[in-house]
Amino acid sequence: MSRIAYLAGPDVFLPDAAGMAARKIALCAAYGITGIAPFNPGLDFSQPPSLLWRQIYKDDVAMMHKADIIIANLTPFRGASADAGTLVELGWFLGTGKPAYGYSNNAENFAARSQAQMAALPDELPGTAVEDFGLADNLMVEGALDGGLILPPDGVSRPFESLEIFELCLQRLTARGDSPRLP
Amino acid sequence: MSRIAYLAGPDVFLPDAAGMAARKIALCAAYGITGIAPFNPGLDFSQPPSLLWRQIYKDDVAMMHKADIIIANLTPFRGASADAGTLVELGWFLGTGKPAYGYSNNAENFAARSQAQMAALPDELPGTAVEDFGLADNLMVEGALDGGLILPPDGVSRPFESLEIFELCLQRLTARGDSPRLP
Repeated sequence: MSRIAYLAGPDVFLPDAAGMAARKIALCAAYGITGIAPFNPGLDFSQPPSLLWRQIYKDDVAMMHKADIIIANLTPFRGASADAGTLVELGWFLGTGKPAYGYSNNAENFAARSQAQMAALPDELPGTAVEDFGLADNLMVEGALDGGLILPPDGVSRPFESLEIFELCLQRLTARGDSPRLP
Repeated sequence: MSRIAYLAGPDVFLPDAAGMAARKIALCAAYGITGIAPFNPGLDFSQPPSLLWRQIYKDDVAMMHKADIIIANLTPFRGASADAGTLVELGWFLGTGKPAYGYSNNAENFAARSQAQMAALPDELPGTAVEDFGLADNLMVEGALDGGLILPPDGVSRPFESLEIFELCLQRLTARGDSPRLP
C-alpha cells in the first residue's frame, strides 16, 4: 500500500497555496506516495479567529495521525530558521517515531543566516552565541530528520516556490534514483 | 515523586547559560519540580563539529525521554517565532503525549512581529500571507501547549533574561497560586 506523506511547510502562506499543494501531491503520486497537505479549502472562514485556529490545529493533527511519514519544507521563513508550525510538526513525527524527511531550497548555512538576521533585527540581549556546526538549521532540526536535511546539491539556493529539491527528497526517500516512473 | 521538567529554550545561547540553567532549576525546586536543562558542562568541545552536534542532539533526546513534561521558553528568537530547536522539542512532547508547557517574555502578537520581520528582511516571495489569529506565535505552537502560551499578564514584554513569566508558568502548572512553598 502506498505510504501517506504529510506535506508540512509554509507553503500554506503562499498566494497560490492550493496550486502548490496540488503540484506537490501530483509529484508524490509519481513516486508512489500519497501526499496530504494541510490546506483545507472546505474550512469555514466565517468562524471567529479563536475557533478557526483551533479547527485548523485539530485538522492538521488528525492529518498527521493518518500519515506514515512527514516531508517538511524547511526552507527558512521569516527568520534564520524554518517555519515555526512546520518545526512543531517535525518534532511530532520524531516523538511518535514515524520517519521524518525534510528539505530546504536555501543553500546558505545557519550561522550565516543567523548573522544576517542579527544585523537586520539585533537580538534584544547582546552577546548570545550563534550555533555554528556548518549545518543548514538548528541541530535539533537536522537531528530529527531521517537522512538529514536535503539541500541544493550544487550549493545554489532555489526560488522559494521551486519543487526541484522537494523532488530530490522524494527520490532519496523512495531510493529510486532518477527514474521514478519506472518499475 | 517529583515531576521531571525538561527546560527547553534558547537560554543555552545566553552568555551566562550555566547561570540561567541553575536559576531555573532552583525555581523549579521551589515548586516541587525537578528541572533538567539541555546545558551540559561536561561536553567534549574538542570533538569535530560533525560529532559534537550529534552528541548534543543525542544528549538532548535522552533528557527528553527522562522528562515527564517540557517547560519551553518560547520567547521569539532571531525571527518572528520561537527558537527552532525548542519548537522541534515542543513537537516531540506533543507526539509522545507528555504534557507541554511554554511561556514567552514577549507581549507583542505574532502578526505584528511577522510584519516587523518582513520590513527588516523582506520575504523572498512577495504576497505571502501573515497568520493573524491574535495569537503570540504560529497556531501549531499555541495548540501544542497544555494551557496555552503563558504571556506577560499586563501586556508588557519582559527582558529576555527575566524569569518572572517562567515562574508564572510554574505556578500555573503546579496550580499552587502564589504560595509555592506552602504544603
